[in-house]
Amino acid sequence: MASRTVFDLDTPALLVDLARVRANCDRVEMRCRDLGVRFRPHLKTAKSIDVARLLPSAFDHGITVSTVKEAEYFAGEGGSDILYAVTVPPDKLPRLAALTRGGARVRLAVDAADAADAMTAYVSESGAEFDVVIEIDSGEHRSGIAPDDARVVDMARGLHAADGIRFGGVYTHAGHVYECRTTEEARHVAAAERAAAVGAATRIRDAGIPCEMVSVGSTPTLIRAEHLDGVTEARAGVCVFQDLFQAGIGSCEIDDIALSVLTTVIGHQPSTGTLLVDAGGLALSKDRSTAALGPDADCGYGLVAPASATDPIPGWRVADAYQEHGLVRSTSDPIDFDSYPIGTRLRVLPNHACMTAAQYDGYHVVESGRVVDEWARINGW
Amino acid sequence: MASRTVFDLDTPALLVDLARVRANCDRVEMRCRDLGVRFRPHLKTAKSIDVARLLPSAFDHGITVSTVKEAEYFAGEGGSDILYAVTVPPDKLPRLAALTRGGARVRLAVDAADAADAMTAYVSESGAEFDVVIEIDSGEHRSGIAPDDARVVDMARGLHAADGIRFGGVYTHAGHVYECRTTEEARHVAAAERAAAVGAATRIRDAGIPCEMVSVGSTPTLIRAEHLDGVTEARAGVCVFQDLFQAGIGSCEIDDIALSVLTTVIGHQPSTGTLLVDAGGLALSKDRSTAALGPDADCGYGLVAPASATDPIPGWRVADAYQEHGLVRSTSDPIDFDSYPIGTRLRVLPNHACMTAAQYDGYHVVESGRVVDEWARINGW
Repeated sequence: MASRTVFDLDTPALLVDLARVRANCDRVEMRCRDLGVRFRPHLKTAKSIDVARLLPSAFDHGITVSTVKEAEYFAGEGGSDILYAVTVPPDKLPRLAALTRGGARVRLAVDAADAADAMTAYVSESGAEFDVVIEIDSGEHRSGIAPDDARVVDMARGLHAADGIRFGGVYTHAGHVYECRTTEEARHVAAAERAAAVGAATRIRDAGIPCEMVSVGSTPTLIRAEHLDGVTEARAGVCVFQDLFQAGIGSCEIDDIALSVLTTVIGHQPSTGTLLVDAGGLALSKDRSTAALGPDADCGYGLVAPASATDPIPGWRVADAYQEHGLVRSTSDPIDFDSYPIGTRLRVLPNHACMTAAQYDGYHVVESGRVVDEWARINGW
Repeated sequence: MASRTVFDLDTPALLVDLARVRANCDRVEMRCRDLGVRFRPHLKTAKSIDVARLLPSAFDHGITVSTVKEAEYFAGEGGSDILYAVTVPPDKLPRLAALTRGGARVRLAVDAADAADAMTAYVSESGAEFDVVIEIDSGEHRSGIAPDDARVVDMARGLHAADGIRFGGVYTHAGHVYECRTTEEARHVAAAERAAAVGAATRIRDAGIPCEMVSVGSTPTLIRAEHLDGVTEARAGVCVFQDLFQAGIGSCEIDDIALSVLTTVIGHQPSTGTLLVDAGGLALSKDRSTAALGPDADCGYGLVAPASATDPIPGWRVADAYQEHGLVRSTSDPIDFDSYPIGTRLRVLPNHACMTAAQYDGYHVVESGRVVDEWARINGW
């Protein structure tokens, strides 16, 4: 295995560029230090203990997850402070309680009084102990409570008073930053995200209730925030790999993207100028997020690079994707099929790293085309 | 386990309605009998030996797959005649040859002379034995060779003459049927699919080369074909489960759809009329195929039904999907949140069964809300 290269792997296969993932991890850790906040990496993108190990904050401070299975996996790998950053229905509490009995500190999210009541009842009956945080809506209007809604203080008071529950604070995620198309807009959303979390925490504290955690985050708002005064921690996930959508909105450069799908040319269709590859809708995911960035920034189902490099071939993209067929077309010079015979290896840079990685149960770690390691990842719920 | 219901499962979970999957399997077997062709089920949708067992043709005649891993899995489960219906690059031949040494008859596809030459060279060096078929382009222009292209007969002649290769015939897939919006158009495409395969076979036979297999298929063309004279076998895959896209183009009724995702309400956002569920972009896939059917037939990321039934709630759809959040909105009456408290179970009918099922490693088989079995499935390559 020590001598394998990208030409020895079965395709499609998921590759991580070691130098880039390390640089991305170092960059986000440094960014949080510069902003004076702790970093709580969101591990829903990588779902890998090997990636988590590149992020010292994951063990020094804590992690974020989005499924119970991620919580179980990382608890089993030594994660001791886990924020499950999706509002939790009662049915999921027993599996999460089992983690706390194993020694992990599990922080759960609520944004509704009935969910908080159900949690209080469960804790009372079962003897479980949870940290609980309130999700604040900082403008995305997907989930969470507006920071000035009276229910924030009411729920904080109820949770603070409940036996077996440690009221932990507030968190928010300004997902509407993904609608921004200018740096200035993103800066405003980042400011709104901070203000919502700090404002809610201030109201709670003004009511005499301790509010330790003030947590914000997304990859773009972490990059655009001018300061995070009053915030205690930031969360971000996709920043470890980056992807074409993040590059399209200015969160990174294309040559920061650490994730790619190794694929093989399986056919030529000269009548349509199409190169067929064995990475289709399953290997790449059907995510078309870059379409929202306009025709010039639309990457189809991904940009295409040579197998031994990650600089995209100008004008090439996966224009269409069937279950196991990717259709590579060029918007600039026509594809010279003789230079890309059947069997040629290529790489596809993904639109959305979280979606693409989820189609695989492991990473092949590459350095200059050599496969230097294999990293685990989990999927499912 | 015998007494479990859909209210006992962790969510999101993949459900198969037993009565419907059986009826769908019986229907496609019957349809092929009526058309006078053998059925070679495409198992890329279900990827499950338990589903294959509902299709007698899978064992009496043979199966179709789209990945090497599917071929390996079904060979291990007793599949003895396997058509790998994607053009095959040289690198995949060793794993496929291993299956033939295990006793399976493996039929490989080519649509280019260089791929055929590489296969001939591999067989000559390795002593492997393969059946090889030529992919014909019946109008989709994705892959395959036009039936009247001289290369069809040239390649057939070369394959027929090669030691270790048994030239098996021709196959085609009229994928452009998915662009049709009327029954009449689909009927024309089905006729073109048949004509292309039969025409290519006739040319090959006229050149004195035997051409046993004349294979066509897709779920819609199998339904719309007026006859399949000259065809020996038909392939179809999604028909075992059906989905909203198939219903949208008239391949089935919504109440034929056997696959659904069980989900739990995790929040309410009254300001936007949104019910949040724990089935998001990973649990449902990001497939948006029904968007192509126009605003009235666009199902978002899926239609929503009560947990114990599969009739969609009128006007409800998963309007947006984040990684682990599905946003359910109603286009008719506003959602009455009190009737759907946090913790409520619902089902989501998928746009595209192949993509949604691929996010799971198993099926929960349900009959009237009771979980009566668990079925295996595989993923990956």
